[in-house]
Amino acid sequence: MPKRGAELRSKQLAMLAGMVHRRRCSDEVKALLEEAAPFTGDPDAAANLREVRRDFEQATRVPVALVEENTRTCTLARRAWADARARSDFPHFLPWLEKICGLQRRFAEALGYKGHPYDALLDRFEPDATTAELNALFGPLRQAAVALLDRLRGGRAVDASCLRRDYPVPQQERFARRVIEAIGFDFERGRIDVTLHPFCSGIGPDDVRLTTRWDRRFFSDGFYSVLHEAGHGLYSQGLRADAFGLPAGQACSLGVHESQSRLWENLVGRSAGFWRRFFPALKETFPTALGDVGLDAFTRAVNEVEAGFIRIDADEVTYNLHILLRFELEQALVKGDLAPGDVPGAWNERFTALFGITPPDDAKGCLQDIHWSGGSIGYFPTYTLGNVYAAQLFDAAARDIGDLDDVHGRGDFAPLLAWMREKVHRVGRRLRPRALVEAATGAPPSPEPLIRRLETHYGAVYTV
Amino acid sequence: MPKRGAELRSKQLAMLAGMVHRRRCSDEVKALLEEAAPFTGDPDAAANLREVRRDFEQATRVPVALVEENTRTCTLARRAWADARARSDFPHFLPWLEKICGLQRRFAEALGYKGHPYDALLDRFEPDATTAELNALFGPLRQAAVALLDRLRGGRAVDASCLRRDYPVPQQERFARRVIEAIGFDFERGRIDVTLHPFCSGIGPDDVRLTTRWDRRFFSDGFYSVLHEAGHGLYSQGLRADAFGLPAGQACSLGVHESQSRLWENLVGRSAGFWRRFFPALKETFPTALGDVGLDAFTRAVNEVEAGFIRIDADEVTYNLHILLRFELEQALVKGDLAPGDVPGAWNERFTALFGITPPDDAKGCLQDIHWSGGSIGYFPTYTLGNVYAAQLFDAAARDIGDLDDVHGRGDFAPLLAWMREKVHRVGRRLRPRALVEAATGAPPSPEPLIRRLETHYGAVYTV
Repeated sequence: MPKRGAELRSKQLAMLAGMVHRRRCSDEVKALLEEAAPFTGDPDAAANLREVRRDFEQATRVPVALVEENTRTCTLARRAWADARARSDFPHFLPWLEKICGLQRRFAEALGYKGHPYDALLDRFEPDATTAELNALFGPLRQAAVALLDRLRGGRAVDASCLRRDYPVPQQERFARRVIEAIGFDFERGRIDVTLHPFCSGIGPDDVRLTTRWDRRFFSDGFYSVLHEAGHGLYSQGLRADAFGLPAGQACSLGVHESQSRLWENLVGRSAGFWRRFFPALKETFPTALGDVGLDAFTRAVNEVEAGFIRIDADEVTYNLHILLRFELEQALVKGDLAPGDVPGAWNERFTALFGITPPDDAKGCLQDIHWSGGSIGYFPTYTLGNVYAAQLFDAAARDIGDLDDVHGRGDFAPLLAWMREKVHRVGRRLRPRALVEAATGAPPSPEPLIRRLETHYGAVYTV
Repeated sequence: MPKRGAELRSKQLAMLAGMVHRRRCSDEVKALLEEAAPFTGDPDAAANLREVRRDFEQATRVPVALVEENTRTCTLARRAWADARARSDFPHFLPWLEKICGLQRRFAEALGYKGHPYDALLDRFEPDATTAELNALFGPLRQAAVALLDRLRGGRAVDASCLRRDYPVPQQERFARRVIEAIGFDFERGRIDVTLHPFCSGIGPDDVRLTTRWDRRFFSDGFYSVLHEAGHGLYSQGLRADAFGLPAGQACSLGVHESQSRLWENLVGRSAGFWRRFFPALKETFPTALGDVGLDAFTRAVNEVEAGFIRIDADEVTYNLHILLRFELEQALVKGDLAPGDVPGAWNERFTALFGITPPDDAKGCLQDIHWSGGSIGYFPTYTLGNVYAAQLFDAAARDIGDLDDVHGRGDFAPLLAWMREKVHRVGRRLRPRALVEAATGAPPSPEPLIRRLETHYGAVYTV
């Protein structure tokens, strides 16, 4: 956006948000819901009604003026954040962060909550999730990850330098397209393009767009971004086309969405089987970069664990610690226990405690993420929820299918995808996240599968 | 768009078009217009009312079902056209063209017309324009252009090979940015990006986006596309921000918009003065490509006239002939004098008569343009109207400012832009196109300035 375009965009988006909000809580929806109330037809329709009613009730609690003000503020705040990050200038962003925290508290009060005000914000991204429940899930994970990180530091060093050689971009793109097609991404119903920050946008199950960026000097950045976004894309392509526009054809939650991206990125994409299948083709594609690299050394390289400042560059072990830091700060901000102006100090203190290193500036610290500037407080924990769900779903799938490392080593990704299609994608919002996980895996969400996965997998990588 | 995404998009766009149309002819607008009827306030408000009333009346004539069916059909037709063009397979597109002609005839009947049914279609793009009026404007132009083309063929040959050397893309981009900044494009309120087909999208006067494509082996393609789109962009940036969303802050018509792009692309961008100013910098930017090329030879090269099959590659002289061909066929199609199935034959016959060469296939003939597939019948003539207006406005500006070749040779583009700002951009839709041209130039639209321009300018280029 050109510099002076922000003002107009903020007004346009605020008007659109207001129009959408008014429609969401319109008398027409209310009348239709009342008319449908006695309906006890098939479970599909009942679930649709339940979710539409929930959306309506949530929407009606929020005044349209708050929606408009929030949209206008966040549009302008995003630009302030981008400038602040570029100059590592927290005071430039502070007035916006203050406004945003104030608006988010007004959302929490409007939406209502039983326990912590943060519950109301969380619930927008992960229906029914509560602060207490997440703290119970994340507590053991935090402890295990910190201990594991400490243990790995004493293990056999991983040399990942082979990933930072010369990987010409057109070949990277061809290889990544081939891989995601092999795991099931349908290019008749999707595409991949280049952008600044990778994302996946689902216009409908027949039109799913992935974007990525490519770094000629770093193989992992582009490849694992594509694999991650393709995981989101497989979910979007797997949603029921016959229920398009209805809850039964919508994604369950951000956490469940993230479970699908993390599943293919980490649990599949960093496995020995996956690379037994694809490393020969990779080596053929990049004979110069990989001429002297063997399968084992390469697989070890993509599993390097190293504490760094930037969340989006983090490995599978440290990633959750980045999230837990934000989750804790957000709770304190929303409750009023932490003033926005004290964020940089609190960030750096907690970061040092978790990682043993201190961010050199706020650009590499509390200014690194776009989320707060967009009013997305309560969003971060869904990333770690995704990791938790992914490990649990993967374990359950393996119980049904057999040794997935073997299956994937043979290049057969159809069984895992079919399992996810049935247990996750085609469920849509007919089950809430917790119920979906329980129905798919036989147990409520638990951090144990992820903890086991991290300890076993990375323990092996770092074993002398 | 991925292949299977078209179906969903056609439904989504049809729904949106229906929603917009319903709003356009809503009782709310009607009541507001009635309430405002006795209003005789300032001329600004009166003009706004007049135009809003016109939009409302036009909209209410068209049934929403026709709008929806048209949008759905055109979305699918666009893909069929793209496939047909790629394979030069007219029969593949024919059923869609038939549907589109049928829909367009229904639009004409719904909108109403006094003379030719084509009037109703034209009027959507160029308010108040009639077929008879355009035929009167374009007749002399056609005759003059054919005669001129014939005359130039006997003139001194132009060697344009210097434009087809090696022009590295980053340098092309830097140079073009520098030029459009010099003519007045404001990068604080606009940007330029790369795409398949150049366009200019105006989100508002403070957010104007140009796109272009670059061809390393052909300087003119990218450069003149940028200059053309920057002309549109200058108009969009010059619209009144204080009247944003109202007719007084909107562009007058497609023809007037095109006059601004053509003005900077051709009347300024192919002039001797323009290149006296910019050729030294260009030569410095591309020392290898232009080391042995002088100013005169380069200026001659960018003014080469040569009959070709493709409209968007056409020079200033032959361009209008491409348009007249389409204009004539469209009239016949809408009146029912030409069956869609006979378009390829009619196209090639007329093309040969005008240009003396025959398209080798339909991809280089009647399938080359996207317009018909989008239901834009009546759009093409606005391109030539733009050329007509541009020459007339340029003449009038020169009368007020003085010798523009001199002024531009000194790098001073502010006077011409200021003139256009006052006489065109800031007028918005307060005047209809014909009245705008008359107010700005002192005469109704006439083909004479354009004919004189073509004969004088290209006569000189091709004089031995």
